[in-house]
Amino acid sequence: MTDKTITFYDFPSKKDGVLAWNPNTLKTRFSLYYKCLPFKTIWVEYPDVESTLKAAGIAPSSIKPDGTPLYTQPAIIDPSTGAALSDSFVIAEYLDKTYPDTPSVVPKGTRGLQAAFIDGIIPCIAPLFAFGMKQSCDVLMNPRSAEYFRRTRKEMVLGGKSVDEIVPKGESAREEWKKLEAGFGKMAGWYGPQGQGNDNSNRFIMGENPILGDFAIGGWLVYCKNAWGEESQEWKDIASWNDGRWGRLLESLEEYFPK
Amino acid sequence: MTDKTITFYDFPSKKDGVLAWNPNTLKTRFSLYYKCLPFKTIWVEYPDVESTLKAAGIAPSSIKPDGTPLYTQPAIIDPSTGAALSDSFVIAEYLDKTYPDTPSVVPKGTRGLQAAFIDGIIPCIAPLFAFGMKQSCDVLMNPRSAEYFRRTRKEMVLGGKSVDEIVPKGESAREEWKKLEAGFGKMAGWYGPQGQGNDNSNRFIMGENPILGDFAIGGWLVYCKNAWGEESQEWKDIASWNDGRWGRLLESLEEYFPK
Repeated sequence: MTDKTITFYDFPSKKDGVLAWNPNTLKTRFSLYYKCLPFKTIWVEYPDVESTLKAAGIAPSSIKPDGTPLYTQPAIIDPSTGAALSDSFVIAEYLDKTYPDTPSVVPKGTRGLQAAFIDGIIPCIAPLFAFGMKQSCDVLMNPRSAEYFRRTRKEMVLGGKSVDEIVPKGESAREEWKKLEAGFGKMAGWYGPQGQGNDNSNRFIMGENPILGDFAIGGWLVYCKNAWGEESQEWKDIASWNDGRWGRLLESLEEYFPK
Repeated sequence: MTDKTITFYDFPSKKDGVLAWNPNTLKTRFSLYYKCLPFKTIWVEYPDVESTLKAAGIAPSSIKPDGTPLYTQPAIIDPSTGAALSDSFVIAEYLDKTYPDTPSVVPKGTRGLQAAFIDGIIPCIAPLFAFGMKQSCDVLMNPRSAEYFRRTRKEMVLGGKSVDEIVPKGESAREEWKKLEAGFGKMAGWYGPQGQGNDNSNRFIMGENPILGDFAIGGWLVYCKNAWGEESQEWKDIASWNDGRWGRLLESLEEYFPK
């Protein structure tokens, strides 16, 4: 009997009690949990992503500005079909199609709407990048990944600035945190007013059941909770905004985590 | 027998051959056409919107920064139920609920996704504002509306600049038009690759049938075609971008126009 266990490529955490933290890989982790598909995780440090995925026969997810291939996680290998895929959206559609008896994360007709929804999250949570990149390096990544991440982001994304230099301070920190609150407020408008008590009718963006778009926001919530810690003011702020919607959204998603 | 004809409040056009042109009211006009609901249009000039909607008993759609109510079109009155509504999204949900035998424009579960989708259109088409506001005043609006629009936008939106001053020129015009093309390119990514010939499987964002989100983009396409004219380079550019997707999208929507 062949092993049907999916191999899932994710980033490790050095923080006690934190299993996974990367908002991108979490979209796939949530998809696998929600569908109850058996999988094992290969924990890959940032500098090893390209060589690991290449060796596993997984195609690059896109092309860098210099024309060379870009290898990214999440990625999976499914021994049942031989599929070797990267990109959380591609993986989600593959899992829906290959395992039609599991709940759908890209329900029929919603591919385009979810693509726009997931794009739309980025400007809403954008202030997190400046606050969070240093935090990720200091708190979540092992030293090899942190060194690589600091060096490559400085060159490729931050125009020569370090992840330390971009952290907002003083009045600027208060303003950027307000912008983040406004961004979450915009997303709350998409979700609409929430039912009380046991009314789950709009706990997720399509109603009672989550889809990939919820996992995309959920990934950022897991990230924030883990980067700053459950008892931090940062997480308490975020969890409480919009009448506590975001704390409750994460709790609702955690129902699907393996016990 | 009572008259079931819905009253629909829209902006008139002074241009020959152009019936309607406002991207916001077009969302409702498309919804009414698509559902084949009988309606008559009340054509309202910009300075008359507040007094007209107030007199008709239609509530404001939001609050201005100074705390006073903001009255906007589209708006409808439905004599069958007594409903008096503004805001294209509110109207769309009302029509779906009140006329369940007509095709749905906010299908079950898509309210939140469509809210995000329609929000996401704005940054994509944003360069149109600087190009289009003067064009709207000069070509589409009657003089009373044009005067009012120029005066109020200068005060409220453009920080004291006129709609003439903000029109991009020379190199800036070429750059802004490139940005617009990139914005349409982003939206094309949401729609995904299009089938050829008679394959209608993804002509709209959910597939074969349009929803409110398609009408939101369609409203901008009608606007561009009417503001610059079908034979203009501007419209030819837009209609041809992304392998002609936008010209075809408008043609697909026009199938629902009354003959």
